Amino acid sequence: MIDFRPILLVIGILLTTLAVAMLLPAVVDGAHGNADWKVFLISALVSLFIGVCLVLVNRTGPASLSVRQAFLLTALSWTVITAVGALPFYFSDLGLSYTDAFFEAMSGLTTTGSTVIVGLDDAPPGILLWRALLQWLGGIGIIVMAVAVLPMLQIGGMEIFRTESSDQSEKVLPRAAQIAGAIGVIYLVLTVINGLCYWAAGMTVFEAFCHAMTTIATGGYSTSDASIGHFDDTAIQSVAMIFMVLGSLPFVLYLRAVRGGWRALVTDSQIQWFFGIAIAAIVAMSGWLWLAQGWDADNALRDGAFNSLSIMTGTGYSAGDYNVWGPFCIALFLFLMFVGGCTGSTTGGIKVFRFQIAYTTARIQILHLLQPHGVFAAHYNRKPIPEGVAPAVMGFFFLFVVCLVALTLALSMFGLDYLTSLSGAATALANVGPGLGSVIGPAGSFAPLPDGAKWLLSFGMLLGRLELFTVLVLFMPSFWRR
Amino acid sequence: MIDFRPILLVIGILLTTLAVAMLLPAVVDGAHGNADWKVFLISALVSLFIGVCLVLVNRTGPASLSVRQAFLLTALSWTVITAVGALPFYFSDLGLSYTDAFFEAMSGLTTTGSTVIVGLDDAPPGILLWRALLQWLGGIGIIVMAVAVLPMLQIGGMEIFRTESSDQSEKVLPRAAQIAGAIGVIYLVLTVINGLCYWAAGMTVFEAFCHAMTTIATGGYSTSDASIGHFDDTAIQSVAMIFMVLGSLPFVLYLRAVRGGWRALVTDSQIQWFFGIAIAAIVAMSGWLWLAQGWDADNALRDGAFNSLSIMTGTGYSAGDYNVWGPFCIALFLFLMFVGGCTGSTTGGIKVFRFQIAYTTARIQILHLLQPHGVFAAHYNRKPIPEGVAPAVMGFFFLFVVCLVALTLALSMFGLDYLTSLSGAATALANVGPGLGSVIGPAGSFAPLPDGAKWLLSFGMLLGRLELFTVLVLFMPSFWRR
Repeated sequence: MIDFRPILLVIGILLTTLAVAMLLPAVVDGAHGNADWKVFLISALVSLFIGVCLVLVNRTGPASLSVRQAFLLTALSWTVITAVGALPFYFSDLGLSYTDAFFEAMSGLTTTGSTVIVGLDDAPPGILLWRALLQWLGGIGIIVMAVAVLPMLQIGGMEIFRTESSDQSEKVLPRAAQIAGAIGVIYLVLTVINGLCYWAAGMTVFEAFCHAMTTIATGGYSTSDASIGHFDDTAIQSVAMIFMVLGSLPFVLYLRAVRGGWRALVTDSQIQWFFGIAIAAIVAMSGWLWLAQGWDADNALRDGAFNSLSIMTGTGYSAGDYNVWGPFCIALFLFLMFVGGCTGSTTGGIKVFRFQIAYTTARIQILHLLQPHGVFAAHYNRKPIPEGVAPAVMGFFFLFVVCLVALTLALSMFGLDYLTSLSGAATALANVGPGLGSVIGPAGSFAPLPDGAKWLLSFGMLLGRLELFTVLVLFMPSFWRR
Repeated sequence: MIDFRPILLVIGILLTTLAVAMLLPAVVDGAHGNADWKVFLISALVSLFIGVCLVLVNRTGPASLSVRQAFLLTALSWTVITAVGALPFYFSDLGLSYTDAFFEAMSGLTTTGSTVIVGLDDAPPGILLWRALLQWLGGIGIIVMAVAVLPMLQIGGMEIFRTESSDQSEKVLPRAAQIAGAIGVIYLVLTVINGLCYWAAGMTVFEAFCHAMTTIATGGYSTSDASIGHFDDTAIQSVAMIFMVLGSLPFVLYLRAVRGGWRALVTDSQIQWFFGIAIAAIVAMSGWLWLAQGWDADNALRDGAFNSLSIMTGTGYSAGDYNVWGPFCIALFLFLMFVGGCTGSTTGGIKVFRFQIAYTTARIQILHLLQPHGVFAAHYNRKPIPEGVAPAVMGFFFLFVVCLVALTLALSMFGLDYLTSLSGAATALANVGPGLGSVIGPAGSFAPLPDGAKWLLSFGMLLGRLELFTVLVLFMPSFWRR
């Protein structure tokens, strides 16, 4: 039997933290004289009560986690926090069902950014802040998970990012706390700078910090239905681009840069590839808008670059309805969704390092064809790739495709058209935000979808966020056998 | 420098054979009193002249092939035979441009089955026979290539199918001849039986044998614009289903079965997986038509099974316009296109064995997560998978996706909508035939596409047919350096 005590203890601590976070929108709503502050206070009390109970009941358990417990903790904690984080949406005046509230919270915490709320421009500030907070907390949660937990669990080739101290399972919790501390400060500083930049570019203070929290988290929740397009401002879009990119790079390298090792930011091959892919996408997209669609060069570069970066990094802001930019745009954005950013960032998707490993493997195959007796070693970041990483990456790609196919087929059974089904599955699994097509595209929302589709998409977001394996392993019978 | 003499010698022999094949439609057209017999005679003379010249000039070269020469021979011979095999279409009264003629010939020889000809029901019998012959010759060419040439070249994990005698490059040509002989007889016998079955089911003798040639080759060219749907006959569809499946199984196992080892047909894991996937697809498709679309059970089973098998095996016959069967059908067929059949058959696509290897790799990854210190061996067909096969399969998947993305984006730049671009790229790379959507779907044709798109699709068909690597290796600078 698996000992649930240490798992429930951590979840209790997280729920207590969540309760504290809920007080922030309560204060903001109260200050605005908005009655919604009660919604947040009640939700905070519920969260605090459950959290404190869990802590008190389970505090006597063992202090270390087995591998199995770490998997369960990861999947369970995201689910429970989503379920409780959905309460303010459910209790509010927005008229959301619990399905909608859960979808919105899952989309927030996984930094996806798909929304079921229409009428953001008139929504109470507390709700807008809560959406931003969920993404901000999800963002730091993901970084900590990617740096401290997943490499230890050897998820989909991530053991390549293992450090000596992430090797032993007993050290997961102290190490998570240590990294959350150091990287958390950087994350906070970047958010504040981002907010100040937005403010300087013309947003109100409230808008600036709501957007800063969802930019650095590559989440994409906005305070307006028209997203960043609402502001129609080149300075604001430029700030968003810079900080979406900063949110897509490995945060451990910022830590190293602060400690004097800033060269790694320039020489890291994953970062180089990330910029290579981003620039190629921007050139293709802006070139298309300029040359084929007849836009003037300035607008083509601005909106082409902005939306390409937003989709690729999985942020999901939009500037304009790119759904009507022609078939090349649809096709490019559909593929860009899968890319994501670097491992150890707030982005979702397949992640750049996996493309590097797959490319290296394919290249060596071709070289091997020409020199069947040659010996070719695969490298990543100028170091040989450890045995076992390439098959793990291959397994990840395969499972990603299987999940994409299954989710697309399941969505299409609800009668959604193929573009909605396919891009909906992709946007959920890759934690992007908007889909393509008129329903869930940048100009639409996920509100009209049937409840079953919303639950499927919520599950897809969780799957993608936890790098598939962490969730799928729970469905293996051998997980539950001794 | 690469010695082209043995390459051109083989191409010369193949062109001479092609010239002989062209005489068949000439005779049929002559017997029908159709003036088109001259078209075939002229084309045959051109093909014969080039072929004999190549043979005479190059007969003094070395009799063995290096690995580089084998790659060049494979890619060049398919291209040259397509270019010459297109002549009858170009010279005929159909009014086709050379682009169209080349596309039709490439689609024929690669057993894809996409067509630019509208009005097949009124086309001269010689042309209909020539289309069927191209697919039939392409089909046997692929089997010989997959059994004798590709494992020697170690393409995309195919070394798993290597036998002792395919190990040495000097033996490629004699072995190809030997296998072409033995399997050719089986191929011919199956075609004749198939033709007789079609005839017994109600087709005319001409229709029966034209369709038999394109069924066993999983090609999909028909004598009617409405494809098999033209006959609207359960018996004919059943015959087609049986022989599409027979064309999708490894022909070497038929050879072994004839020699007494028929058990391999039952125990081969690739065959078991093929049937598993096919049955799952049929149940899903027919169930959808029956329960969600309200069809009666008989029709749902017949047309659901027929079209699922036709798409999955890459044959590309159609019975009815499945384009209007709802989004689930579109999504399912889009994914089924990639599957294909077994290696060593006439099918295209990714092929079942690669899914088996990817699945095994992913499964071992998950087991490994639970027991980090456990040792798990990957098996294929109850034997351990040799080192190097899993990365080769991974490289193939990755290149397939890269080619699909590139081809889709390139097609969309010609203004084709996303479903046409995506399904067009998929149907070409996987050698299926029809795409999805109203333009290139089962009720449409490839004729309205711009010339550039047709050349791109022709290249895509060649890429897919030659398992990507064989073509892509020619674009490596190191291929041409000594």
